[in-house]
Amino acid sequence: MLHSDRLFPADADSRAVARRLYAKIKGLPIVSPHGHTDAQWFSGNQPFPDPATLFIQRDHYVFRMLYSQGVPLEKLGIGQARIEDPRAAWRLFAENYYLFRGTPTRMWLNFAFHELFGLEQILSPATADRYFDTIVEKLAAPEFRPRALFERFGIEVLATTDSPLDPLLHHQSIRASRWQGRVIPTFRPDPVVDPDFDGFAKNVATLGALTKEDTSTWKGYLRALRLTRERFQKLGCTATDHGHPTAATADLSASAAESLFAKIVSGQASAEEKELFRAQMLTELAAMSVEDGLVMQIHPGAFRNHNQKIYQKFGRDMGGDIPTRTDYVHDLRPLLNRYGNEPGLTVILFTLDETSYSRELAPLAGHYPCLRLGPAWWFHDSPEGLMRFREYTTETAGFYNTVGFNDDTRAFLSIPARHDVARRVDCSFLARLVTDHRLDEEEAVEVAQDLSYRLVKQAYRL
Amino acid sequence: MLHSDRLFPADADSRAVARRLYAKIKGLPIVSPHGHTDAQWFSGNQPFPDPATLFIQRDHYVFRMLYSQGVPLEKLGIGQARIEDPRAAWRLFAENYYLFRGTPTRMWLNFAFHELFGLEQILSPATADRYFDTIVEKLAAPEFRPRALFERFGIEVLATTDSPLDPLLHHQSIRASRWQGRVIPTFRPDPVVDPDFDGFAKNVATLGALTKEDTSTWKGYLRALRLTRERFQKLGCTATDHGHPTAATADLSASAAESLFAKIVSGQASAEEKELFRAQMLTELAAMSVEDGLVMQIHPGAFRNHNQKIYQKFGRDMGGDIPTRTDYVHDLRPLLNRYGNEPGLTVILFTLDETSYSRELAPLAGHYPCLRLGPAWWFHDSPEGLMRFREYTTETAGFYNTVGFNDDTRAFLSIPARHDVARRVDCSFLARLVTDHRLDEEEAVEVAQDLSYRLVKQAYRL
Amino acid sequence: MLHSDRLFPADADSRAVARRLYAKIKGLPIVSPHGHTDAQWFSGNQPFPDPATLFIQRDHYVFRMLYSQGVPLEKLGIGQARIEDPRAAWRLFAENYYLFRGTPTRMWLNFAFHELFGLEQILSPATADRYFDTIVEKLAAPEFRPRALFERFGIEVLATTDSPLDPLLHHQSIRASRWQGRVIPTFRPDPVVDPDFDGFAKNVATLGALTKEDTSTWKGYLRALRLTRERFQKLGCTATDHGHPTAATADLSASAAESLFAKIVSGQASAEEKELFRAQMLTELAAMSVEDGLVMQIHPGAFRNHNQKIYQKFGRDMGGDIPTRTDYVHDLRPLLNRYGNEPGLTVILFTLDETSYSRELAPLAGHYPCLRLGPAWWFHDSPEGLMRFREYTTETAGFYNTVGFNDDTRAFLSIPARHDVARRVDCSFLARLVTDHRLDEEEAVEVAQDLSYRLVKQAYRL
Repeated sequence: MLHSDRLFPADADSRAVARRLYAKIKGLPIVSPHGHTDAQWFSGNQPFPDPATLFIQRDHYVFRMLYSQGVPLEKLGIGQARIEDPRAAWRLFAENYYLFRGTPTRMWLNFAFHELFGLEQILSPATADRYFDTIVEKLAAPEFRPRALFERFGIEVLATTDSPLDPLLHHQSIRASRWQGRVIPTFRPDPVVDPDFDGFAKNVATLGALTKEDTSTWKGYLRALRLTRERFQKLGCTATDHGHPTAATADLSASAAESLFAKIVSGQASAEEKELFRAQMLTELAAMSVEDGLVMQIHPGAFRNHNQKIYQKFGRDMGGDIPTRTDYVHDLRPLLNRYGNEPGLTVILFTLDETSYSRELAPLAGHYPCLRLGPAWWFHDSPEGLMRFREYTTETAGFYNTVGFNDDTRAFLSIPARHDVARRVDCSFLARLVTDHRLDEEEAVEVAQDLSYRLVKQAYRL
Repeated sequence: MLHSDRLFPADADSRAVARRLYAKIKGLPIVSPHGHTDAQWFSGNQPFPDPATLFIQRDHYVFRMLYSQGVPLEKLGIGQARIEDPRAAWRLFAENYYLFRGTPTRMWLNFAFHELFGLEQILSPATADRYFDTIVEKLAAPEFRPRALFERFGIEVLATTDSPLDPLLHHQSIRASRWQGRVIPTFRPDPVVDPDFDGFAKNVATLGALTKEDTSTWKGYLRALRLTRERFQKLGCTATDHGHPTAATADLSASAAESLFAKIVSGQASAEEKELFRAQMLTELAAMSVEDGLVMQIHPGAFRNHNQKIYQKFGRDMGGDIPTRTDYVHDLRPLLNRYGNEPGLTVILFTLDETSYSRELAPLAGHYPCLRLGPAWWFHDSPEGLMRFREYTTETAGFYNTVGFNDDTRAFLSIPARHDVARRVDCSFLARLVTDHRLDEEEAVEVAQDLSYRLVKQAYRL
Repeated sequence: MLHSDRLFPADADSRAVARRLYAKIKGLPIVSPHGHTDAQWFSGNQPFPDPATLFIQRDHYVFRMLYSQGVPLEKLGIGQARIEDPRAAWRLFAENYYLFRGTPTRMWLNFAFHELFGLEQILSPATADRYFDTIVEKLAAPEFRPRALFERFGIEVLATTDSPLDPLLHHQSIRASRWQGRVIPTFRPDPVVDPDFDGFAKNVATLGALTKEDTSTWKGYLRALRLTRERFQKLGCTATDHGHPTAATADLSASAAESLFAKIVSGQASAEEKELFRAQMLTELAAMSVEDGLVMQIHPGAFRNHNQKIYQKFGRDMGGDIPTRTDYVHDLRPLLNRYGNEPGLTVILFTLDETSYSRELAPLAGHYPCLRLGPAWWFHDSPEGLMRFREYTTETAGFYNTVGFNDDTRAFLSIPARHDVARRVDCSFLARLVTDHRLDEEEAVEVAQDLSYRLVKQAYRL
C-alpha cells in the first residue's frame, strides 16, 4: 500500500536523485507550527475513540467527499455526540473508499493504516471489519495513547490554535506535567475581532472579564488583546493566526478607528463597516506583533458555511467552506505601507487562490522584508498542490521566503503522513532542478533540509 | 501521422502503463451526451458535402485560426450558403495548415484524414489536391453516409442540442425509422430564457403557440416550459443545457419572480433585470429538474460575439466568442441553498475559466451532492487542457464527481478523434498515478473504464 | 556551473530531441525588440563600471531578493550615484547568493560569470573576492566594451525604450558612427499620455516645445505625437510601447475625446477621467499605428511603487512593482471593435497575470488578425514561466500568433543568458510534442527556428 518510491518523479535519473535527497531528511523531527489538534489529548492522554469517530466524524476531508456522493451525514455519525453504530459507519466508509482514489486523503489514511496499524490490504467492503477490529485493538494499547504517538511521530513541537477566551488549562497542565512534549498555543483572535463571528458581542465582553479591562472602549479592548497575547506567550505561544474572509487591511487614524469600534460594539455596523473593522484590526494586530514579536499568520479567502442547510443542521466546519478569489496586492497595501519594512515583523501569508502564487504572493514576498509565504494550504496541501506551490513561487520568491510545511490538521494520526507527502514533493521538485542542472545535488540537500526543518523554526521563532 | 503511442507520457515506465490502460478502453463505445451535430444528418442520411464545407466552413476552430493570421473569411466560404470554389478554399487551408502545429484541431483533423480517408502524408500545398480528391471520392460512398459513420464510430448514444421552439421532426423521424442509432435531443431553453437572445419576445410568443399556453403570464410561461420538457423527454431527452454569460443564480419569492417576468416581457427591463431574470430562471429550471429528473448542464462564461464587425457581417458562432472570469462560489449559492441537497437533482458545471477548477469547482463538487464537474470544455478540451482538468480537480473532487468526456462538437467526423484524445490523456494521467504509486494498476483500469464509459451514462441517466 | 543539457527534459528520449533542436538554433542571431539598455553605452562605448554597480545596483531582480531577506538597500549602494564601497557590497551579495537558488536570476548570472568572465566555481563568500577582481580586470579590457560585447553576443538588432521627450542624441550618434551595430529606439509615450506620470503637465508642454505644436489643444497634442513618431521612425524605430496600469481602452467620439483632454490638461481630472484618458489614448495611438505602421506593444497590469516608503526614499524601479489581475476581454474591446480587423495593424499583448493566457489572451490572439502574444514577461520570463506560456497558449493560439522572446532587460550582460534560457525552454516544449507524437521532429526544427528568429523579425517589422 505504501511504496518506498511514492510521489517521486517517473524518470529514472530524477527518481534516483529524489531518493537520495529524501533519505537525508526523512528522519528529521516534525515541526508543526500550525494545526488544530486538541491540547486535551496531550494533557489527559486518554485513548483515542473508535475508528469511525477518529477517522470519519472528525475529518471533514472524509465526510465531505462521502456527502458529495449522496451518503447522508447522519449515517456517518455527523452531529452525534457519540456515533451510535461505529461499525456500520465504518462499513459505509469502506464501501465508498474507492471515491478517494487520486486524493491526498487516501494517501494520508493509507499511511496511517499501514504504518500505525500494520494493515496491508486496501480498505474495502471485504477488509472493513478486519480494519475496524485491528484499529480498535491497537487504540486500546498504551503505545497508541496521544503522548506515545507524539513521541513515535518524532514531533519536536506542535502548535494548537486557540481562542483568546480559552483559559488554556490543558496547555498549563501539559507544562505542569513531567512530560517533555512541546505543545504550544497559537493566538487566534477571530472570535473577538470578527464582528460576524458567532457571539461576537458576548465574546468581547468575556474578553473584558478575563482580562479585567473595559472592552467596551477601544483602548480597553486593545489592552485586553495585548494582555491576552502576553498570557499566551507565557505558555510558549510564538504566533498569531487570522482567518479572515478577505485579505483586506486598513490604516485608519486613531480617532477613526475608535469611532469605528464604537459603531461595531453598538451592534449597528453595516457589512462594509464590519469588513473595515476586520481590516483595521489586522493592522492593529501587526502593530502588537512589532511590539511583542509574535509572528502573524494571515489565512484569508474561505467562504465559510456555503451550504446553509448543512450549517443550520450541523454547525461549522462541515465541509461547506469554499475558497474564493483573493486580492493581496490592493488589500494588504495599507498594512504593508505602515509596517512592511519593519525589521522585527514577520507576516506569513496563506492562500486558497492558487492564481495568486505567481501573480501576487511571490512578488510581494520577494520584496517586502516582513513577508513570508506559508505552504500550500487546505485544499492545496496535496501532491499536485504542493508541487504547484513550488513551481509558481520559487522563481520569484526563492526557497528562503517560504516557511516549510504546515499540516493544519485536526486529524492527529495524519500528521506524519502529511509531512511525509510534503517532504517527498519537495524532494521531487528539487530532484527535477538537479536533473535539469538548475541546482547541484549538494545544494539541493541543503535546501531539502531547510524546507523540512530549519526554515519553519526560523520563521515561527521556535 | 498517427503514432500508436501519441499523447502517452515520455518516460518508459509510465508509457508502458498508459499503453496497457488504453488497450483496455480504446474499444469502449462512445457516449456523446453533449454536442452540436444536426439530427437531420441522421434522419436524411444524405452524403456529407465537399471537403471545404465539411472541414472548414463548419468548423470555427479551423477558420478562427486562419482568420487570426489574416486569411479573409470570404476566401474560406464563410457566410456563403454554398462555397463557390471549394478547391480554392481547400488549397488556402492546406497552405496554412502549418499554423495548426501544436493545436488539438490538427490532432482531430489528422485523425479523421488518416483513419477515415486513409491519407498518410500531412496536409500541405503539395498534398492539397490529393486530399481534396480522395475526400470527395470517399464521401460519395455509402459507407461514408452519416448513419454508417455513426455505426463505424461505435457511438452508443449521441445527444444534439435543441431549442424549445424546435419541433424535433428529425428526431421523430429517426425514431420512426428502422435505424437503431440512438440520437436524442437536449433541452436548451436559452432562446426563451435569455432576454438578450435574438428575437426573445417572439420566441416566448412562439413557445406559447406551440404549447397552447399563455406565455405572457409567469404561470403560463412556466407551464409552457414544463410541457416542452415533457415533449423532449418523450424523444429520449435526459438533460437540459444552459449557456449563460455568467453563473449567476437567484432565489426570488414567487411574487418577485412574477413581477420580474412582467418587466421582462414588457421589453422595458434594464441590463441588471435581464441578468437577474436569467439567474432566477436557472433556479426555476432546477426546480423543474427536481420534478422531472432532467439533468442540468450549466455552461457559463463566454463573452459572445466579441468582434462586432464579424458578428454584423457573418452572425453568431464565427470564432469571436471569448472566455471570461467566472465566479461560481457567490453566483451559484442561491440555487444551491435552495436545491443543492436534493437527492434527485444533478447539475453538471462547465467552465471556460481554468482558475476555477481547484479554487471553486472541485471544492463545490466535492461537497454538494447535486453537483458534478463537466469535462474540460471548448478552448480547453485539448491534451494540455484535459490534463490540467485532472491535475486541478482530482485531489479535491476525486474522479467520481466528474462525468467523462463531452465532445461538444458540430464536426461530426471529429467525434472519434476527440474521444480518443480524452481517453489517451486520462490514461496518461492515471499512468502517472500508477508510476508514482498513488494508485494500483488494477484500480487504474477500473477508473479508466469509469471515465470513458460508466460515469457519463450514470451522470446523464443514459 | 553551466551544464550543456541544462533545462532539457529529464527523460532520455525527450532530452535527445531537445539537444538536437537546440543545436540547430543556438547559433542564430539575437533579435532583441524590447528592452531597457542605454543607447549611451553604444554611442560612448566606455567600459562598464565595477561589478557591484553592474550586477547589483542596476538589477532590481537582484536587490529586491536581498531586500526581501532583510539586507538594507543602503548597504547595496542603492540610491547612491556611485557605490561607496563596491567590494563590501559585492561580499554581501556573495554571502546571500544562496537565496537565489531556483531562480532565473541565478541562471542568468551564472551564465555571465561563466561564459563572459570564465568563472567556474559558484559565487560564495569564499569566491567573492576572486569574482570581484576577475570581473574588474576583464571589464577594463577592450573586448568588454559595449560594442565589442554587442558583437560577441551576436545581436542583430537591439531596441531601447525611449520617452517622446528624449532627443535621441545617442541613437543619432550611433547611426552617425561607422559602427554597424543596429540599435533602434522604441516610442514609449507614457510620460505624455498617462496623467498620473510624474511631471505629466510639464511633459506635455515640453512635447509642444520640441515639436513646435500647441499641445494644450487636442489637435495640437495629437499632431505632436505624430511628429514625434516620425522622428523616432527616422532613427529606425518600428514599435511603440505602452505600460498602463490596466488594459482599458475606449472609443470616444472626437468631441468627447477633445473635452476629456481639456479636463486632463486643466489638472482637474478625477481618477476615473485619467483612466478613461489612458484608455482613449490607446485607441488614438492604434489609429496612428494604422497610419504609420508602428507595431504597438501593450504591457498592462503592474501596480507601480507598491512600497511607498521605498518609493519616497529611492524613487521608481526599486523592486516594488507588483502584478495585478488584468481583464483583457472587456478592456480591449473598444479598441478591437474599432481597429481589430485592420490588415495593417499589429498589437502585441503582454501580461503579468498568467491566468489570462488560456482564458483570454490565446482566444483573443487566435481570432483577431491584429493581435499577437508577447512572450512571458518580467516575473514570468523564467524556465517555469516560459514553459507555462507555451503550455497555456499554444493549443488555442498556435505558435504563429506569438512573437519570439523579449529580454526586456536593463542588464545588458544578461541578454545572451536570457535568450539562451528561452531557446532551451522552447526546445524542451517542442521536444515533448515530438516525443508524444504531436509534431514531427523536422517540423519542430522549423518551429524552433521560427520562435528564435523569424517570428520576432516579422512581428516587429525588423
